[in-house]
Amino acid sequence: MLNTPIRSVQWSGTHITLLDQRLLPAKTEFLSLTSIKDVWDAIFKLKVRGAPAIGIAAAYGLALWTQQTTLTNFNDFKSELVKQGAYLESSRPTAVNLFWAVKRILSVVEPVSSVETAKEAILAEAQLIEKEDEDVCRSIGEYAITLFHDEDTLLTHCNAGGIATARYGTALAPFYIAKERGMNLKAYASETRPVLQGARLTAWELQQLGVDVTLITDNMVAHTIKSKGVTAVIVGADRIAANGDTANKIGTYGLALIAKSLGIPFYVAAPLSTIDLDTLSGGEIEIEERHPDEVRTLNGQAITTPDMKVFNPAFDVTPSELITGIITEKGIIQGDYQPKLAKLFL
Amino acid sequence: MLNTPIRSVQWSGTHITLLDQRLLPAKTEFLSLTSIKDVWDAIFKLKVRGAPAIGIAAAYGLALWTQQTTLTNFNDFKSELVKQGAYLESSRPTAVNLFWAVKRILSVVEPVSSVETAKEAILAEAQLIEKEDEDVCRSIGEYAITLFHDEDTLLTHCNAGGIATARYGTALAPFYIAKERGMNLKAYASETRPVLQGARLTAWELQQLGVDVTLITDNMVAHTIKSKGVTAVIVGADRIAANGDTANKIGTYGLALIAKSLGIPFYVAAPLSTIDLDTLSGGEIEIEERHPDEVRTLNGQAITTPDMKVFNPAFDVTPSELITGIITEKGIIQGDYQPKLAKLFL
Repeated sequence: MLNTPIRSVQWSGTHITLLDQRLLPAKTEFLSLTSIKDVWDAIFKLKVRGAPAIGIAAAYGLALWTQQTTLTNFNDFKSELVKQGAYLESSRPTAVNLFWAVKRILSVVEPVSSVETAKEAILAEAQLIEKEDEDVCRSIGEYAITLFHDEDTLLTHCNAGGIATARYGTALAPFYIAKERGMNLKAYASETRPVLQGARLTAWELQQLGVDVTLITDNMVAHTIKSKGVTAVIVGADRIAANGDTANKIGTYGLALIAKSLGIPFYVAAPLSTIDLDTLSGGEIEIEERHPDEVRTLNGQAITTPDMKVFNPAFDVTPSELITGIITEKGIIQGDYQPKLAKLFL
Repeated sequence: MLNTPIRSVQWSGTHITLLDQRLLPAKTEFLSLTSIKDVWDAIFKLKVRGAPAIGIAAAYGLALWTQQTTLTNFNDFKSELVKQGAYLESSRPTAVNLFWAVKRILSVVEPVSSVETAKEAILAEAQLIEKEDEDVCRSIGEYAITLFHDEDTLLTHCNAGGIATARYGTALAPFYIAKERGMNLKAYASETRPVLQGARLTAWELQQLGVDVTLITDNMVAHTIKSKGVTAVIVGADRIAANGDTANKIGTYGLALIAKSLGIPFYVAAPLSTIDLDTLSGGEIEIEERHPDEVRTLNGQAITTPDMKVFNPAFDVTPSELITGIITEKGIIQGDYQPKLAKLFL
């Protein structure tokens, strides 16, 4: 039996049904967001995470507002919509996809001239944003699956999963496609300290999907690849430079070095929206450093002295020569990344 | 100013002063063990950890018993001593050093014929066991320091520190010797999931010693080596095979692969007692797998679903070709490990 994949954001006609990702994996709780304030709160409090999922939630948030507004004058409606968009943007000012989604929704109102038409266009656009993201992820999964065989064992890091997107995710997309096709892909998920997205989200998500998934700590990667017959590593990406250098969750670089040393392929699965041709190489990517307490504590409990000096980079950069292939919605890029990535945008 | 190094086990004339390692790093608490029952309890409850430290505690435990016994007949004394030794051994039946120390203490009674002489000989032997371990660790540190320069930055994993031995430790010994010589060695300590010996013990121990130490999660190793100018990796060992393959805390193998890929030396620091010439290669070393809840939880708090499948190997094996040198109390072994390690025992 194929398990129904969990969707983190769903339009339910009169409200948004949202998976509260903060409670995972202890509780799988869906919230009914019945006002734009609820949506603001969900983004602000990280109930929804993952760039595409945030964008989708924001788009539906504006659709929800249009359903509920009593404004009938189109100009009043339009100027209030702009304000509501700015309000949503204030929930997480660093989330690029949030701004992108609000901009898309506002732009569909430009050519129309009535409140009713605007309402319809806005809901249609929100649904299109969701649909496009689902299509992109599905396409990534379909390309990815061509690289693997029945009974292969993949190792993944952090969470580039379905709950961060409309559906399927990026690095986890081949697991969803495999399930649909009755193909058996096994998984090892590294826990991904300090924030434990692997333990809390990926291991849980794959377990929900009915995948044979095994959780390991991050330092077990080399021994696991060697002793458990792991056939490939697949991860997502936060940003891919023009030459293929890839910024992703801290630990990805070490994983790529180990995969290369042990002779197994290392794949990055990411949509074109992650590729930034203006960043020429990984050296230009600034690595965010996060609060030391993330490392000093585990799940809120102190694991070292309170004044311990800590280095807490959120990401690292994997040089493109360690990457066997970059799997996008337009196909798999291998080898000479610079011209091949540029060509995707022509 | 040189900080006074913390000793985990000390003979205090009428009792044993023992660092309660379970409370680290939240509390640095020393216990007064005033009976052999207290010593049994300390070993059983893991208040003392580290093979050498356990052996030293057991030896002093028997010395403590001889001080308190009212037996005056030598044969009665001797047969009760054997019973007390067996009692101590029951505290942690897998600890090889515990049995070794009890055996050494019992053997010194063989050539003597009075209770008084036996008491003196036992205390002297316990002190010798401690002194020998201190000398071994100091010698490892003195050889190790020849490999490093002022202002070097070393990365270490798990805890091969002074609190696991009489003093100095093995992988941490060069930090103690450097401090004595006014030389500045900086450190990165990886936290060492799942049991967090790096975060709880090593980072704390080096902080106590006044070393500039920075804590990282295990998956930050590659990015840290590359971006922070780490000059070498140094770790301890649980067992070294005849060909130099080294079993050590899980994560060591990945660390060695990363060090090699990034072109920095990878050293193992360990006493001759760790080298097992009867184990021909690492392939013969069985890897203990520990309880899944170590990975699933921390201090009883779940970080994943309660039924999550887990792989939890306690150790891994680093092939000798990844090891730049093995630092022992008899010198640094490099290159052709098989004949050179065997020669140490001639």
